[in-house]
Amino acid sequence: MNSAVPGTTHDDIAALTPARARERFRAGERVATSGWCPGFTQANLIAVPQQYAYDVLLFTQRNPKACPVIDVTDAGSVEPGIAPGADLRTDLPGYRVYEEGRLVAETGDAREHWREDMVAFLIGCSFTFERALLESGVPVRHLTAGTNVPMYRTNRACRPAGRLHGPMVVSMRAVPADQVAAAVQVTSRFPSMHGAPVHVGDPAALGIEDLAWPDYGDAPVLADGDVPVFWACGVTPQAVIAAVGIPYAVSHAPGQMFISDVPEATWALA
Amino acid sequence: MNSAVPGTTHDDIAALTPARARERFRAGERVATSGWCPGFTQANLIAVPQQYAYDVLLFTQRNPKACPVIDVTDAGSVEPGIAPGADLRTDLPGYRVYEEGRLVAETGDAREHWREDMVAFLIGCSFTFERALLESGVPVRHLTAGTNVPMYRTNRACRPAGRLHGPMVVSMRAVPADQVAAAVQVTSRFPSMHGAPVHVGDPAALGIEDLAWPDYGDAPVLADGDVPVFWACGVTPQAVIAAVGIPYAVSHAPGQMFISDVPEATWALA
Repeated sequence: MNSAVPGTTHDDIAALTPARARERFRAGERVATSGWCPGFTQANLIAVPQQYAYDVLLFTQRNPKACPVIDVTDAGSVEPGIAPGADLRTDLPGYRVYEEGRLVAETGDAREHWREDMVAFLIGCSFTFERALLESGVPVRHLTAGTNVPMYRTNRACRPAGRLHGPMVVSMRAVPADQVAAAVQVTSRFPSMHGAPVHVGDPAALGIEDLAWPDYGDAPVLADGDVPVFWACGVTPQAVIAAVGIPYAVSHAPGQMFISDVPEATWALA
Repeated sequence: MNSAVPGTTHDDIAALTPARARERFRAGERVATSGWCPGFTQANLIAVPQQYAYDVLLFTQRNPKACPVIDVTDAGSVEPGIAPGADLRTDLPGYRVYEEGRLVAETGDAREHWREDMVAFLIGCSFTFERALLESGVPVRHLTAGTNVPMYRTNRACRPAGRLHGPMVVSMRAVPADQVAAAVQVTSRFPSMHGAPVHVGDPAALGIEDLAWPDYGDAPVLADGDVPVFWACGVTPQAVIAAVGIPYAVSHAPGQMFISDVPEATWALA
């Protein structure tokens, strides 16, 4: 059972079209989207008032590994190009609302929080490359353990853009030493989904003092002989926007992503 | 002889560092940059007043094959991240200045035309993948002929962004039929330099009535058994900005690109 609705099985959520899944979220279902609509691209959401959109867009251009933008709405439009007919204010399972960087609401329906001039950014997420890793025989420890991926603030500064500046956040996946090369190869094929790792093997070099205590997500799962591998993480823009106190922002709730109509294979390089 | 300065040989321009080449352009040398500083990334320049920068940046995000942005300056800064110490107003051989879409000046020194709030976009160019094609044994006909690549407006609309809309412009290179696959493979490795072709083989499908009459550049060079292969072209944003009449813009003069400090290999995928 992977859903908040009684009687829903994993098979059900894997067989749904993205449009039907969005319909269920619109009707009120609150659930993590991992495992839903396999083969379709899921995305992080961050929406800001128009006057901050340039800084966010420039920040994503300057930090493409952490912020691989796959779609940007026109100001005032709630329908993204990657899912015609969808409504970004209602079609995710859950939302978080930030004022001056503080979390002020968590909701399943963002309509009352969605200002008229909001610009929404949809940012590639690691679900896509995790599936590709599994299909290549590379274990993904936190998926097996049923936990969230551990994420860490690093000592690497993002390239600033306007008012936005802050550290790069990375996610960590422990990979058997003899499969690190495969993990690099597989994820390199998905530059729009964070791409190749930014670092392999030495947490201290990234300023991570204790791997056991991530800044976000759950404690890491490592097996004997595993090497910690770090990817730029889509939490980076949210952390930066919160840290610098952009007056108003709406994001997806953790793990409750936007499911688009775009096949994941679209993003894979040969 | 490939230079405006007497006594300069091709070997000279191939041996210069990018910083030294920019110094010569700053001192007044007006010359096409093809063949200069091989191995270093050259870029298209388009600079607009700050109030138009969001539309341009969003347009590039929505049309990444035609507009692969490799750097964006802060408003008012003339020093790009890809060439610390450079001055974008003087360090290209030549510039064009547009008012309301009309060409109003062509100059070797853009300082008097550079408004204080200009934002400069540096966009990947095909020189990088042409070198890779040659190194893979794929002939590049217009280079052999010493002509400019032919470019065509197509019937494919770019995804609009704010005030910016217009057709995609493509460049055409004639490739021997048995090397088309190699040309696709080689250029796919450079997504930041226009990437894989957008079309192979049928000019009419792109709305090109007569291949012999390009909209920009020189007439095409085709050998027996060649197939026309089309790539999204960096002229697209300039054509769009001219067509919709952005009040003010500065670009590089045709073929007179910005030479950055970034090795071309940086952009190649494995």
